[in-house]
Amino acid sequence: MTDKKFVYFDNINNTQVAPEVIKAINNVLESNPGNPASHVHSAGVNAGIIVEESRSKIADFINCDPKDIIFTSGATESNNLAIQGYLHANPDFGFVTTNIEHFSILNQARKIKMTGRSVDILPVNIDGTVNLNLLDSFLSSAPALVSISIANPEIGVIHEIETISEICHKNGSFIHCDATAAAGLMELNIIELDIDLLTLSAHNMHGPTGVGALYVKENIKIAPLFEGGNQEKGLRPGTENLSGIAGFGEACALAKKELPGRVEHLKKIGEKLWNGISDNVPFINFTGHPEKRLPGHVSFWVKHIEGESLLLLLSMNGIMVSSGSACSSNLKAKDEDELKASHVLTAVGVPSDICAGSITFSSSKYNSFEDVDHVMSVLPGLVERLLSMSPSYEDYIKSQETSNE
Amino acid sequence: MTDKKFVYFDNINNTQVAPEVIKAINNVLESNPGNPASHVHSAGVNAGIIVEESRSKIADFINCDPKDIIFTSGATESNNLAIQGYLHANPDFGFVTTNIEHFSILNQARKIKMTGRSVDILPVNIDGTVNLNLLDSFLSSAPALVSISIANPEIGVIHEIETISEICHKNGSFIHCDATAAAGLMELNIIELDIDLLTLSAHNMHGPTGVGALYVKENIKIAPLFEGGNQEKGLRPGTENLSGIAGFGEACALAKKELPGRVEHLKKIGEKLWNGISDNVPFINFTGHPEKRLPGHVSFWVKHIEGESLLLLLSMNGIMVSSGSACSSNLKAKDEDELKASHVLTAVGVPSDICAGSITFSSSKYNSFEDVDHVMSVLPGLVERLLSMSPSYEDYIKSQETSNE
Repeated sequence: MTDKKFVYFDNINNTQVAPEVIKAINNVLESNPGNPASHVHSAGVNAGIIVEESRSKIADFINCDPKDIIFTSGATESNNLAIQGYLHANPDFGFVTTNIEHFSILNQARKIKMTGRSVDILPVNIDGTVNLNLLDSFLSSAPALVSISIANPEIGVIHEIETISEICHKNGSFIHCDATAAAGLMELNIIELDIDLLTLSAHNMHGPTGVGALYVKENIKIAPLFEGGNQEKGLRPGTENLSGIAGFGEACALAKKELPGRVEHLKKIGEKLWNGISDNVPFINFTGHPEKRLPGHVSFWVKHIEGESLLLLLSMNGIMVSSGSACSSNLKAKDEDELKASHVLTAVGVPSDICAGSITFSSSKYNSFEDVDHVMSVLPGLVERLLSMSPSYEDYIKSQETSNE
Repeated sequence: MTDKKFVYFDNINNTQVAPEVIKAINNVLESNPGNPASHVHSAGVNAGIIVEESRSKIADFINCDPKDIIFTSGATESNNLAIQGYLHANPDFGFVTTNIEHFSILNQARKIKMTGRSVDILPVNIDGTVNLNLLDSFLSSAPALVSISIANPEIGVIHEIETISEICHKNGSFIHCDATAAAGLMELNIIELDIDLLTLSAHNMHGPTGVGALYVKENIKIAPLFEGGNQEKGLRPGTENLSGIAGFGEACALAKKELPGRVEHLKKIGEKLWNGISDNVPFINFTGHPEKRLPGHVSFWVKHIEGESLLLLLSMNGIMVSSGSACSSNLKAKDEDELKASHVLTAVGVPSDICAGSITFSSSKYNSFEDVDHVMSVLPGLVERLLSMSPSYEDYIKSQETSNE
């Protein structure tokens, strides 16, 4: 057993800001840039250069033209700008998304429906992948904006975006992808994937929180969410987050440079975790497709025990992971009805009658094999402890004994 | 003459980030916080503490309850959240603003009008102050949300908010104030001013760009602009800008601590600038109220010369100021029709037949008396040079000679 006290496996929710990124942020903070809108003097010009240099790095990262990148305050704003913005500018389009998307997308779907537009929520397969035939049939009747994440943060599944975008386009529809969970962990070539709108977030790829981007393909029309100045071609008014944008650019440049090594490392971490858990934890149920998934991402639920309790015990042992359960975000829930499995878990068939929240281990380049060793030195004992307290497990043991009599 | 090469008097558009703020930002970046939503483990809890500590500092700065502060990406978003958000949640209210507000407010007015709501644009007096009788009569017919900045960035005028909010409230109306230009330069006591919604921006008060806040008085209902998670009481979904928020909090704490000294220093800088310009620059016309104005803020236009040209010559001499003219933001304007004075200058009676853009000197605590000396060693010569090239001045001289004959 290692003497390490804290192990961070919650990279799907926030990553450590890379030292190179911190340096880029400080270069901006200490250089006294002006406001890019004050382009009549050198401080303003310098500020504009910071923004454009970063825009180029982000464009380079996803292989697009820099002019198609719009800076935002993060993934939630990008998702709202993409969907609200597109539908506002294209009144004849409906909306299609899956039943495992982030709330910044699913909550929009509910709101769009209230305006009388056609909205279809596509149920995913039991492994979290998109049902391609169903998508095709949804789109055959009328054109829609389709919003599907590149990868799902909770169950790690990576969608077949190339095929999905082909289905969208042959039906006269367009596709928005949220790349928040995927960026920095897999190649994102916007030309090959043939995506029309793409959400990026800095803080999931070793950049700072509070900055993101939206790629908007040439000739795709969107309306802004805000009124104001003419920043970002008028599509996102407001003074630019200069230091955040510089940090985001550096994070993208790093990701591009390090990607092959990162993926290889994370795959090994993920395999070691998966095998360790598979071999040492009883009643294990992994969620999401076993191969089509983010490297270093391992998500599961354990029959007979509550995910929430396991999450808290792990946390008390210095192991930081996330829960796919609504429980964690509903600790103040008034009654048990509110303590049910998340929409994603329900969508992939996890029983929701008990608080069967899943556990998500999500890795970054800063995770080591020792981190996995520490997890494996702790996790099986915690599961055993929870099983010993579980009424459901007790019933199961009794039923086994009965059937053996 | 000083050998100083660069003098920055464009603090109304962006201020130098204070070293204390940079330190606060780095403390966050280097502490590896989690996502505040991941509140089941210590990294997430620490992230939440960063946000709440900063919220308290901002609340302390304007004398409100921390729970009434909502973090945003900046003033433009706050202005949109206040106005779009309030009107969405209060369908029976009209909208009233002045003809010298920022585009993030005036452009909303235009959009609101298109929805069929009552919208009134209040013309200001020639000194930039609000016509109180006219406001009262506008509000007597139906309740409205009134949006008036605490101070105008272009002409420096400070509005009589206490009186204005009294007029609003006695008419059953509510008031939103944009404090972007004022924060850090004057006391902002939300209780005394009796404001319902208040916009704050960090980068105008030695904080970073990309972060702001909206104060929403208890019982004032607003709707969010975005769909997503439950951050900021569901009124502003999206992962919090942790380092920016920490920097903003520190900027507010600094401003509160330093305010009396800052104001005294800036008043002296402003007086020295005002007197120097008044005594040494011919054909000078100061804009905005001479006393009710931001400390250290001096704005003017010079008859016979184009503000744009003066701005560029000042910039070439290392003096960074801003223009109240649309010219600066329309350098790519196709013809002279587009090169006209800004809406603010037109509102306060500056002739718009030539490109009579005004010049705005806006100071910060980092400006010194030597900065003013440098300006005064350069400015009169530049004005003389532009006058010697001015057809309008030539006509004026000829007419003087004729009348003397």
